[in-house]
Amino acid sequence: MLRFGIVKETTAGERRVAITPDAVPRLRAAGLDVLVEAGAGAAAWFADGAYGNAGAQIVTVEELYATAAIVACVRRPPTRLLRHGQLVIGLLHPDPLYAGELAASGVTGASLDRVPRALSAAQPMDALTSQDNVAGYRAVVLAAGVYERFFPLLITAAGTAPPARVLVLGAGVAGLSAIGTARRLGAVVTGYDIRPAAREEIASLGAAVLDLEGADGLALTETEQRAERDQLAGPVAHHDVVITTARVPGRRPPLLVTEAAIKDMRPGSVVVDLASGELGGNVEISRPGERLVTENGVSVIGAGDLPATMPGAASLAYSHNVCAFLAHVLRDGALALDPADEIQSAVIFTGGGA
Amino acid sequence: MLRFGIVKETTAGERRVAITPDAVPRLRAAGLDVLVEAGAGAAAWFADGAYGNAGAQIVTVEELYATAAIVACVRRPPTRLLRHGQLVIGLLHPDPLYAGELAASGVTGASLDRVPRALSAAQPMDALTSQDNVAGYRAVVLAAGVYERFFPLLITAAGTAPPARVLVLGAGVAGLSAIGTARRLGAVVTGYDIRPAAREEIASLGAAVLDLEGADGLALTETEQRAERDQLAGPVAHHDVVITTARVPGRRPPLLVTEAAIKDMRPGSVVVDLASGELGGNVEISRPGERLVTENGVSVIGAGDLPATMPGAASLAYSHNVCAFLAHVLRDGALALDPADEIQSAVIFTGGGA
Repeated sequence: MLRFGIVKETTAGERRVAITPDAVPRLRAAGLDVLVEAGAGAAAWFADGAYGNAGAQIVTVEELYATAAIVACVRRPPTRLLRHGQLVIGLLHPDPLYAGELAASGVTGASLDRVPRALSAAQPMDALTSQDNVAGYRAVVLAAGVYERFFPLLITAAGTAPPARVLVLGAGVAGLSAIGTARRLGAVVTGYDIRPAAREEIASLGAAVLDLEGADGLALTETEQRAERDQLAGPVAHHDVVITTARVPGRRPPLLVTEAAIKDMRPGSVVVDLASGELGGNVEISRPGERLVTENGVSVIGAGDLPATMPGAASLAYSHNVCAFLAHVLRDGALALDPADEIQSAVIFTGGGA
Repeated sequence: MLRFGIVKETTAGERRVAITPDAVPRLRAAGLDVLVEAGAGAAAWFADGAYGNAGAQIVTVEELYATAAIVACVRRPPTRLLRHGQLVIGLLHPDPLYAGELAASGVTGASLDRVPRALSAAQPMDALTSQDNVAGYRAVVLAAGVYERFFPLLITAAGTAPPARVLVLGAGVAGLSAIGTARRLGAVVTGYDIRPAAREEIASLGAAVLDLEGADGLALTETEQRAERDQLAGPVAHHDVVITTARVPGRRPPLLVTEAAIKDMRPGSVVVDLASGELGGNVEISRPGERLVTENGVSVIGAGDLPATMPGAASLAYSHNVCAFLAHVLRDGALALDPADEIQSAVIFTGGGA
């Protein structure tokens, strides 16, 4: 019987777990022997007991890596623990260096950030989508907690509270999720994206669409990017909450909101940068994982890592993604890796252990 | 010209301000000379400059108390700073000791927590209502930030996320505000109140109504209260978020949620106690201003003071309340105190400076 291992994440601040207890019976039905590293789900409030009740076996980290044929994780596990012939499934964001490292150890890497999103059969495995959906929702909840006025319009005996004006820059999955959540909470929402198709999606959610001159299509020149930033400064200043979500895989995110634009915002306004990370962010002064308050009273939050702060929802969705990928590569309880398969060839980035 | 002073709050953690800049022109039109203590609105993001632009004069704390005929505040100002003949308007929650203290100094106290809520003319002055409205909204935003799953039902390619089940105990202004906000965010909401009229209001907001045996009307005996608690334990355990709002002015809040009931909740659940304060709370283990996490992973938040954490919205509404009261007691720019007036006789609790 193929042994399938769920590891405890080792990256600082990472509270998600790759497989949640509800998925264990499904994995067993697919012919897997399910092992869980002790405490793997604890940070997301999934106790060892819940895995045990679902039919998994709780093991030590040593036993897990020594015996599992398949290892499920969120972030990269320590390479030194991996063994020849193992299949590792995660959100591994592989670069050539990492791919080479795994290949040298004879490990097969499958990374769910490489799912071909356009294929409908691949959508249940699309972990970037599931995690961005969490991030967009969380960004609004976070902003509402920091913003010290109401999101909805309220008409009461003590006067009328105007609704919050929320601007969402970038209308991919995270942006659309943020737009939907901000509208749920009663805010007046405007969305912006350089892609015409995304502008239609913003409108279909009932939000206003911000149109800028000369910002059309993905490939903006440096001059066009500067013009975009300059044109965004006015709208940014006229909103109470700005959420930025423009990311480009493996590259520096485009700078959309300058320090000067933030200086014109009203005190008490909130900016959440979902693109904030080591490479920079959409907001000039955002810092990863930090909340700054500017001299003019604007809170700027570097929030590139929100799914890890909402590990319950994020883990449940990610666990579905991993299971969908497993269903695709398992035949009668055995791995059936096929380099000719369109999904597998995209997701699997080393042939090492195949 | 009557001088009207807006003070900077001195209570720790109190970030509200009694009058917001938007109200200054209205006060001046009513014939008042408006003074603002430097920095009075800073913690709620209302800068001195905004008051100045609106026509107020920024002064020192000494000048303010030495020259203002009327002092507007949120919490009790230091009594030693008050002068004979002054009128102090605040949320003063006066007890006989405090009333005596002001009377001895020849100060007239007006407390907007004593507004006769049943009188429709008094409703614009009702600060308990305006602040409870803020508290209920904020409780849900706070709970959504601590709860690590989605509030709304989400159906995606990565599976279905069930909606959060939210239970609101006590359906006064704060409870109804919480119910409305949780429903906005997409949660499945149940409300509970011992008053039949409040149960109708819960239903009118589209929430389910929890009915318990023998809990009807305000005056429960000790035995009935115990029976209520026992009957609440089951529903509490079956909800993801519990918000309690049952307060009794000047008295210990009723104990609704026991430690044992919380032990049966699912890990990751959230309990917010809006009644938490020095006298206790609705939740046995809540501590004022703190977030505890129980051994079984339930977050219990003592949140008796939420309006002070959302000072923008809370100050704007409270400022409306103060202005409405002022409009009621001013005639041609002079104080026209009238002990025979139904509102004034309720609100004014010392005749000292009249």
